[in-house]
Amino acid sequence: MSVRERVENVVEAPRFHAFIIGVIVVNAITLGLETVPHLLDRYGAPLHVVDRTAMAIFVVELLARLYVHRARFFRDPWNCFDLVIVGVALAPATGPFDVLRALRVLRALRLISVVPTMRRVVSALLAALPGMASIAALLALILYVSSVLATTLYRDVAPEYFGDLGSSLFTLFQVMTGEAWSDVAREVMAERPIAWIFFVAYIAVTTFTVLNLFIAVAVSAMETQVGQEDRERAADESATMAALLAEVQALRGEVRELRDESAKV
Amino acid sequence: MSVRERVENVVEAPRFHAFIIGVIVVNAITLGLETVPHLLDRYGAPLHVVDRTAMAIFVVELLARLYVHRARFFRDPWNCFDLVIVGVALAPATGPFDVLRALRVLRALRLISVVPTMRRVVSALLAALPGMASIAALLALILYVSSVLATTLYRDVAPEYFGDLGSSLFTLFQVMTGEAWSDVAREVMAERPIAWIFFVAYIAVTTFTVLNLFIAVAVSAMETQVGQEDRERAADESATMAALLAEVQALRGEVRELRDESAKV
Amino acid sequence: MSVRERVENVVEAPRFHAFIIGVIVVNAITLGLETVPHLLDRYGAPLHVVDRTAMAIFVVELLARLYVHRARFFRDPWNCFDLVIVGVALAPATGPFDVLRALRVLRALRLISVVPTMRRVVSALLAALPGMASIAALLALILYVSSVLATTLYRDVAPEYFGDLGSSLFTLFQVMTGEAWSDVAREVMAERPIAWIFFVAYIAVTTFTVLNLFIAVAVSAMETQVGQEDRERAADESATMAALLAEVQALRGEVRELRDESAKV
Amino acid sequence: MSVRERVENVVEAPRFHAFIIGVIVVNAITLGLETVPHLLDRYGAPLHVVDRTAMAIFVVELLARLYVHRARFFRDPWNCFDLVIVGVALAPATGPFDVLRALRVLRALRLISVVPTMRRVVSALLAALPGMASIAALLALILYVSSVLATTLYRDVAPEYFGDLGSSLFTLFQVMTGEAWSDVAREVMAERPIAWIFFVAYIAVTTFTVLNLFIAVAVSAMETQVGQEDRERAADESATMAALLAEVQALRGEVRELRDESAKV
Repeated sequence: MSVRERVENVVEAPRFHAFIIGVIVVNAITLGLETVPHLLDRYGAPLHVVDRTAMAIFVVELLARLYVHRARFFRDPWNCFDLVIVGVALAPATGPFDVLRALRVLRALRLISVVPTMRRVVSALLAALPGMASIAALLALILYVSSVLATTLYRDVAPEYFGDLGSSLFTLFQVMTGEAWSDVAREVMAERPIAWIFFVAYIAVTTFTVLNLFIAVAVSAMETQVGQEDRERAADESATMAALLAEVQALRGEVRELRDESAKV
Repeated sequence: MSVRERVENVVEAPRFHAFIIGVIVVNAITLGLETVPHLLDRYGAPLHVVDRTAMAIFVVELLARLYVHRARFFRDPWNCFDLVIVGVALAPATGPFDVLRALRVLRALRLISVVPTMRRVVSALLAALPGMASIAALLALILYVSSVLATTLYRDVAPEYFGDLGSSLFTLFQVMTGEAWSDVAREVMAERPIAWIFFVAYIAVTTFTVLNLFIAVAVSAMETQVGQEDRERAADESATMAALLAEVQALRGEVRELRDESAKV
Repeated sequence: MSVRERVENVVEAPRFHAFIIGVIVVNAITLGLETVPHLLDRYGAPLHVVDRTAMAIFVVELLARLYVHRARFFRDPWNCFDLVIVGVALAPATGPFDVLRALRVLRALRLISVVPTMRRVVSALLAALPGMASIAALLALILYVSSVLATTLYRDVAPEYFGDLGSSLFTLFQVMTGEAWSDVAREVMAERPIAWIFFVAYIAVTTFTVLNLFIAVAVSAMETQVGQEDRERAADESATMAALLAEVQALRGEVRELRDESAKV
Repeated sequence: MSVRERVENVVEAPRFHAFIIGVIVVNAITLGLETVPHLLDRYGAPLHVVDRTAMAIFVVELLARLYVHRARFFRDPWNCFDLVIVGVALAPATGPFDVLRALRVLRALRLISVVPTMRRVVSALLAALPGMASIAALLALILYVSSVLATTLYRDVAPEYFGDLGSSLFTLFQVMTGEAWSDVAREVMAERPIAWIFFVAYIAVTTFTVLNLFIAVAVSAMETQVGQEDRERAADESATMAALLAEVQALRGEVRELRDESAKV
C-alpha cells in the first residue's frame, strides 16, 4: 500500500469526517465566544490556541486531500470553496486587513461542504439560479433606470434618499423589499405631490416582477420533484403498454399461422 | 363489566368529550376575564372557583384516561401534550415562578388535542417540519455566521443593534423578516458606507433561502394532496391494464388450444 | 302576457342590466365627489339629487325583481347582498347613525353582484374559505392564548401595547402581519430581556401557520383548475381503455365460436 | 439587389444588432454618469456628445427599420415601444418639460426589446396580465370604496392620512402593502377606538384578495409549463393506445376471415 493510498484511507474514513465536523463546530463556537469582551480578556489565550489548532487541522486536511486527489481536487467546486475559506483565514490580519480577521468566522460555512445533507440543499438552491437569471437581469435594469430617474427628479427634494446614484440604488432596493417605502414616498410627495405616480408604478412593477421571479423558482422546484414521480410512473405505464402490444402482436402471429394451417387443410 | 371498562365507557363517550371541550372553552374565557383588573377585583373569587374546578376536572380526566390506557397512554404524543400542559398549571405559582402562573392560559391549547379537526391540522403542520429541517439548519448557520461577523465589524458603530452576539442574532433575525431593516442599515452606513454590501448580500441570501424553505413546505403539501389523487388514478389505470393483459393472455391460450385441435384434425 | 312577465322581460333585458351598471358607476363617482368639501359646497344640491335618484332606481329595481322572483328571490345569496346594501342606505342617517351615512358608499359594491365576471371572481374567493376554516380557527386560538399571556406578562412593561386584552389582541395581530414588530419587541425587551423568546416563538409559529393557510388556499385553487384538466384527460383515457377491453372481449367471443365450430367439424 | 434589400441586410445583421446593444449600454452608463455633478462639470461636453450620437444612431436605426418594414413595422408592439421611447427623448426638454429630460434614461429600457431573452421574459410577464384583470378590478373597487369610507369617517381625525380622497387612496394603498399600517391605525384609534374593525377587515380582505391575485398568476404560469409536458406525454400515450386498438381490430378481422374460411370448409 503506497503512502498516497494510506493517506486516502485516512482522509476518506467516516471517523476522520466526523472529526473534521467536530473541529468546525468547536471552532465556530470559540469564534462566537471571542466576541464577548470579558471572555476574551480572561480566556483569550486558550481561545486563540483552539483557533490556531483548528486552522492547522484544516490546512493539513486540505493538503492531504490535495495530495490524494491532485488535479482532480480542483474539479469539485466544493473543494475550491474550502480552499478560498481557509485561504482567507491565512491572509495577514493586521492593519488595513482588519476585515479579513472578521471573515475568519466564514470557516463555519465549511459545515456546508462537509455535511452531505447541507451540501445537497445548497446544490439544490444553486441549481435554481440559472432559471432566475433573465428575470433577475430585468429587475436589475428596472432598478438602474428607476434610480437614474429618481436621482435626476428628486435629488434636491430628498437628498438623504436620492442625493446620488448610489443612494438612489440603495433606497429603491429598500422600496423593492417594501421596507419603510411610505417614509420615502411621503417625504418626496411633501414637495412633489405628483411623485405618487413614480412610487406606485415602481412598487407595482417590481412586486410583479419579484413575484414572477419567485414563481419561476417555485415552478422549477415543483417540476423537479413532482415531475420525477410523474416520469417514473409514465415509464412504468409505457412498459406495461409495450408488453401488451407485444402480447397482441404475438397473438396475431399465432392466428396467422392458424389460418395458414387451416388453409393448407 | 369491570370498573376499568366502566371508566372507559365514560371517558370515551361523545357526551363526556363535549363536556371537556365546554370546560376548556369556559376556562379559556375566565382566564381572559381575569386579565381585566376591575373584573378581577369584583369577581375574583368566583373566577378562581371556576378556574380551580376546571383544573380539577382536567386532572380527574387525565387520571381516568391514564387508568384506562395505562402504558399505552404515553404512546400517543397528544396525551403527553395534555399531561405537560396540565402539569404546568399544577406547579407552584408563587414568587419566582410567576411566569408559570401566566402559562396557565396554555390550557386553552388543549382544544387542539381534543377537537379532532384541530388535531388533524396541527398533525399536518408538524408533518411538514422534517422536510424543512435541512434548510432550517442552513438558515440557522447563516444567521450565526452573519451575527458573529456583524458583532465584530459593527459593535462600536451601532451598539444597540450589534453590541453583543445576542443583540446581533436578534437584529439579524429582525432583518430576515424584513422588519425595519433600513433603519439598522442606514445607521450603520452613516459611519461605514461600505456596509450596504453586508446588508444587501444578507437580505438576498436569507430571502432566497427562506423562499426555498416555503417552497419545500408548499411542494410537500401539494404532493401529499395532489399526489394521492394521482396515485389512486394510477392504481385504477394499472388495474384496468392488468385486466386487459389477462384478457389478451387468456385469448392467446384459447387460440393455441384451437391450433392444437386443428392440428389434430 | 301578464304584468309579471312584462316586468320580468324588462328586468332581465341586457339593456336594463347595462343601465343599472351605469347608475352604480355614476353613483360611486358622485359619492366620491361628495368627499371634496368645495365641490360639496358648490354642487351639493345636484350631487344629492343624483344620489337620491340612484337610490330610488335601486329600490325600484329590487322591488321589481322581488315581484318577479318572489320567494325564489331570497334563495340567491347575491340578492340578499343587494338587499342589505340598499337597506343600509335607506336607514335613518342622522345623529348617532352618522356611520350609516358613510356606509352609503358600499352601494358601489353592487358592481360585484351585477357584473358577471366580478361575481364569478368573488364566488371563487368565497369557495376557498371553508378549506381555510380549521387553520383560521387554529390561528385565532394562538392569537387569543398569546394575547392573554402577553397581557399578564407585559401589561406593566408596555401598557400602550399590552395594557389590556383588546390592546394585546391588536398588537399581536400587528406582529402577525410583521408590521413594526421590532418596535414592540425592543420596548418590552428593554425591561424584560428574556422576552425575545416570546416574540421569536410567536413569529415563527404564526408565520408558519399563516404560510400553511396560504398554501391550503393555493393548493385548492390549483386542484380546481389543474385537477379538472387532469380529470377530463383521465376520463378520455379510460374511455379508450374500455373500448379496447370491449374489442378484446368481442374477439375472444369470436375465437370461442370458432373453436366450437371447428370442434363440431 | 434593391436599396431596400440592402438596408434590410444591414438592419437584420447580427453585427448591427450587437452594435445597437452596445450603444444602448454605453448610453445607459453615460446617462448614469451625468447624475454625478462633478463628472458633469468636468466631462459635460463629451458626455453630451455621446448622448446625442446615441440618439442619432437610434433615430437612424428606427427610420431604417421603418423604411424596410413599412406598414408591418407598426404591427409589432415592440417597434411601437421603441418608437415611443425614442420619441420622448426627441421632445423639447426645456422649461416645464424638464421631466421629459429625466425620462431620457428610459432609453435603456430598449435593452428589453433588443435582447431576445429579455423580450421573452417580458412577454411572459405581460401574458399573465389578462388572467389578473378581474381580480385587479375587484381590488381597485375595494380600494376606492374603502377610501371614500375612510375619508368620510377619519378626515378630521387624521387629516395627513385621510384628509381628502387622494390621500386616502394613497394611505390605503400603503396599508395594502402592509407598510407602516399600524402607525396609521394607532393614530386613528387614539380618537376612534372602534376603528380597529375597519383596519383589520380591510387588511384581511385585501391580503386575501392579493393572495388570490398572486395564486392566479402562479397557477397560470404553472399550467403553461407543467401542462405542456403533460399534454405531450398524453399525446404520446394516446398514440400508443391508437396503435394497440388498430392492432386488436386487425386481429379481429383476421379471426373473422379464419372463421369464414373454416365455415366454407
